[in-house]
Amino acid sequence: MRLSRSHPRYASLRVRAHLADLTRAGLVAPEGLIAHGRGEAFDYLLGERTSPSARAAERRAADWLRSARRPVLSVNGNVAALAAAEVARLALACPGLSVEVNLFHRTPARARAVAAVLRAAGVRRVLGVRPTARIPGLPSDRARVDRRGIFAADLCLVPLEDGDRTGALRALGKKVVSIDLNPLSRTSQTADLPVVDELRRALARIADDLERAGCPERTGRFARFDRRKALADALGTIGRNLRRAAAPPRSAERRGRASPRPVRGTVGRSRRTP
Amino acid sequence: MRLSRSHPRYASLRVRAHLADLTRAGLVAPEGLIAHGRGEAFDYLLGERTSPSARAAERRAADWLRSARRPVLSVNGNVAALAAAEVARLALACPGLSVEVNLFHRTPARARAVAAVLRAAGVRRVLGVRPTARIPGLPSDRARVDRRGIFAADLCLVPLEDGDRTGALRALGKKVVSIDLNPLSRTSQTADLPVVDELRRALARIADDLERAGCPERTGRFARFDRRKALADALGTIGRNLRRAAAPPRSAERRGRASPRPVRGTVGRSRRTP
Repeated sequence: MRLSRSHPRYASLRVRAHLADLTRAGLVAPEGLIAHGRGEAFDYLLGERTSPSARAAERRAADWLRSARRPVLSVNGNVAALAAAEVARLALACPGLSVEVNLFHRTPARARAVAAVLRAAGVRRVLGVRPTARIPGLPSDRARVDRRGIFAADLCLVPLEDGDRTGALRALGKKVVSIDLNPLSRTSQTADLPVVDELRRALARIADDLERAGCPERTGRFARFDRRKALADALGTIGRNLRRAAAPPRSAERRGRASPRPVRGTVGRSRRTP
Repeated sequence: MRLSRSHPRYASLRVRAHLADLTRAGLVAPEGLIAHGRGEAFDYLLGERTSPSARAAERRAADWLRSARRPVLSVNGNVAALAAAEVARLALACPGLSVEVNLFHRTPARARAVAAVLRAAGVRRVLGVRPTARIPGLPSDRARVDRRGIFAADLCLVPLEDGDRTGALRALGKKVVSIDLNPLSRTSQTADLPVVDELRRALARIADDLERAGCPERTGRFARFDRRKALADALGTIGRNLRRAAAPPRSAERRGRASPRPVRGTVGRSRRTP
């Protein structure tokens, strides 16, 4: 289907078409599309931009990635489809950061496809294609990880992760940094450092910070982060946007237009997608 | 994948797996899965139940279906996958209601598949498999409708519809009743009577009302409906649920649990999925 650039949701439509194509190609799981839809809804409610609170969380995430002795970035089909370039940039900016394929709906073919996309984007070493260890407390395939990667990590950066797995990683004593647009998701509610922002925006900004710091450090000590405040801030942002959206667009009404002005103009006042 | 009944999101997971299967089978478009995810997010924020305001909208939708001289229910892949039984029940409860296949991502095979699912659920006559007319102002496939159905209708009930099409139907002077969980979607913002509720809940309740009334009427006159208030009510419900969710679950904190109580307990206080 051809997409019209004038469509008020053109950017979203383009991403949707891209993900749909990659589902047909087997990289993205159908369930991953549903998850993307949930994220879209929350990004919309968040105004489709990085809030100051999310930016602060991203800065702290960059600190933690520097502090960790064995940081690992977990990559699933959606992450590879949406942000392979950002993953490669982050890996380059943070020497010592392992990149591991970590699929909820694992098939050997999908694991290879995700690794291929990452390598094509410039990630040199990709773990997790042939898992060598298990995370206790998780059913079957979802437990499978790389012994040198997530299994041994002291910090896991898990974008678009599942709540059970986030909990299982924390139960192993690992620090978990999530990237998830839903502040109410079990992942956001469980992570030590929930970044409530869109994947590409978040990865790009964390990479900015790491590049600026020239990465290294590796102290194994993690600075404090107020996760409750971060989540409350995100809910506050959504609440404010909703109140703004609920205010009737009187001028449009007076002119008798059948449909109101696009809501994007109300909620996502200044759209800054990367 | 086997789903655990004890999973806090078991009901959602089951629906997701069902839709994913039907995508593999070609009934649901990949883009339909993304749309489902957006709906899920809003249903979650609405507390996963029918609000009093949504119930009032459903009652008025039933009135309008009785008042209309040529009402049509538009069915796409997601609607067939999620609620074929409810569609059949509504058609039975409302003699004169046409059921028309109306696809955003139309292929002849998908149109036939949707019709087959509807017939298997008990819908006797299904329009729109071979479109015979066009709605002006819409690009290509999305404009194609049945001359005896949507084209000639005075009222269209459009569950999970697209904003452009909703606008094009209104521009033709038709009354449009939408069913859409997102009160900010262009569909909800454009429809004459936006029902902000989950598809199956909404269809089942509208069918309740029609069965109770023993349908007929067909006056061609539509009672007043305050669409702005309905949308504001939905935003208000979401806002209240968010404020409730933002209140920190202190008891869990004091007990030092790693993960908080399931959010469902906070937002969707009494879950009443059909």
